[in-house]
Amino acid sequence: MRIIQIIPVTGLPIIKSGDDLGLLICEAAARQGTPIEDGDIVVVTHVVVSRAEGRVVCLDDIIPSEFAKTIAKEFNRDPALVEVVLRESKSIVRMGDGHIISETKHGFICANAGVDKSNVPGERNVALLPEDPDLSARRIRQRIREVSGKDVAVLISDTHGRPLRNGEINVAIGVSGIKPIRDRRGEKDLFGYTLKVKQTAIADELSSAAELVIGQADEGIPVAIIRGYPYEKSEDATARELIRLREKDLFI
Amino acid sequence: MRIIQIIPVTGLPIIKSGDDLGLLICEAAARQGTPIEDGDIVVVTHVVVSRAEGRVVCLDDIIPSEFAKTIAKEFNRDPALVEVVLRESKSIVRMGDGHIISETKHGFICANAGVDKSNVPGERNVALLPEDPDLSARRIRQRIREVSGKDVAVLISDTHGRPLRNGEINVAIGVSGIKPIRDRRGEKDLFGYTLKVKQTAIADELSSAAELVIGQADEGIPVAIIRGYPYEKSEDATARELIRLREKDLFI
Repeated sequence: MRIIQIIPVTGLPIIKSGDDLGLLICEAAARQGTPIEDGDIVVVTHVVVSRAEGRVVCLDDIIPSEFAKTIAKEFNRDPALVEVVLRESKSIVRMGDGHIISETKHGFICANAGVDKSNVPGERNVALLPEDPDLSARRIRQRIREVSGKDVAVLISDTHGRPLRNGEINVAIGVSGIKPIRDRRGEKDLFGYTLKVKQTAIADELSSAAELVIGQADEGIPVAIIRGYPYEKSEDATARELIRLREKDLFI
Repeated sequence: MRIIQIIPVTGLPIIKSGDDLGLLICEAAARQGTPIEDGDIVVVTHVVVSRAEGRVVCLDDIIPSEFAKTIAKEFNRDPALVEVVLRESKSIVRMGDGHIISETKHGFICANAGVDKSNVPGERNVALLPEDPDLSARRIRQRIREVSGKDVAVLISDTHGRPLRNGEINVAIGVSGIKPIRDRRGEKDLFGYTLKVKQTAIADELSSAAELVIGQADEGIPVAIIRGYPYEKSEDATARELIRLREKDLFI
C-alpha cells in the first residue's frame, strides 16, 4: 500500500521580484525536515511565480482606454483593473455579474484573465499571470535540480472557476517534467474490459490536491510537495495539452 | 506543519449487490494497518456504490426505442446502451464524436449520463449512477460510525470530462458530513486584502486527490481515505451545492 503525502512548504519568505524560487523552495523544504526527494511533484501557486518574475503592475500607473472605462462603469469596477484585464486577454468570452471571463494570451479561459489582487503586496498592485508558465515551471525544476540534485516535476497552479459546477478548483497552468494527462485508453479494467475513454488530467488533480494545504488567505503557504505519486516523466510537457480546443468541446 | 495523507484502501472484495460497504471499508482499512479515524474523509468511487446498491443492468434485457436505435446507428453505438443513457437523462446537452453529453436526473452534466461499462462484472452489464448519491454517502457514513465509532465525511466520486479543459478529473456527486464548498469570501489574505470571490470546491478537490490512489483499471482500489485535512462539518450537506445553475453560468 502506497500512501501519498501532500506536504505544505512552510517558512518561505515573502516572495519579491528577482527571488530565486527554486533555491528558496529547497531551503524551506529542508528546514522543515522534508527535503526535496527524487520523484516529488512541487506545486507552486502562480502568484508567487508572478511576483518573483516581476509580473506585478500598479494600477495607478495604468491609463485606461475609453473602452475599459465604459466597461468599468457598467460593472462598477476599477477602470485601471479592467484595462489590465483587457491587455492580458486574447478575447472576451462573457461579461456579467461583475465578472469578465476572458481567454488569456496563453489560451486559458478564466475570470479577469488571471489578474489577481489577492496575496500581492501594495494596495494598488495586481499580479498578472506568468508570461510563459511552462517556462517558469522548467526554470524552477532546473534550479531545484542544481541545488538539491533531485529530479522533480513542477506544476504552476491557478484557481479557476469553471462551467457547470460551483466553486473554484486549482488547475495547472504550467508544467515541467511530467505528462499532464495520463492516457489510460487501451488499459484493461478489473474484469478485463478495455477502457475506451479514459484520459486523466493528472496535472489538474495534483494541483487540486496541493490546494488542500496551500492556504492562500490565512497561512501563506504558496508551495506544496506531493510525494509518493508515480507519474509519467516528460521533458517536453506543456500545459497547453490541458486546453480543450473549442471545436472539440462537446460541452459548450 | 500538517501533512495530508491520501491512503488507498486495499484488499476490498469485489463488491456485489447488497454488500455492506461501510462495514467492508472499516474492515479493509483496519486490516492494512490504517483503521478509520475521526475526521477522515472517505472517498468512494460511484461504481462500487452502484454495484452494492444493485444499480447494474444487463444490456440484453433492454428493449431500445426507435429513437435510441436512430441515435445508436448514427453514432455507431449499442442501441441498448443508448436506451439506458436516455432513460437516465433529464435532457440531452449535445451529441457528437461518438459521445452523448446529457444532464442526469440529479442535474449533473456528463458523458453518457454517468452510465459506466468499466469495472462492472459481466460483459453486457453496465452500472447506472446511484439513485441518490447523497443518500448513499449518508448511509456509508452512518455505517462507518456504527462499526468504528468514528465520525468521518464521505464523498461519492465520479470521473467527469469538462468543458474548456482536456482530460477527466474526479468530482463529488454525493457528500455527507462535510460542506462541499469552503466559502472564503471575507477572509483576509497575507497582506490584509479581503477576498471577494473565493469559494473553493473542496469536495471536488478532495475527490481529485483521492483519484491519485484510486487505480480504476489496474489495481482495483475503489476507496481512499484522506487524512489530516481540516474540513467544515455539515449534517445537511448535498452535492447539489456543486451544481452551477445555467442562468448563473457565465462560462457557457
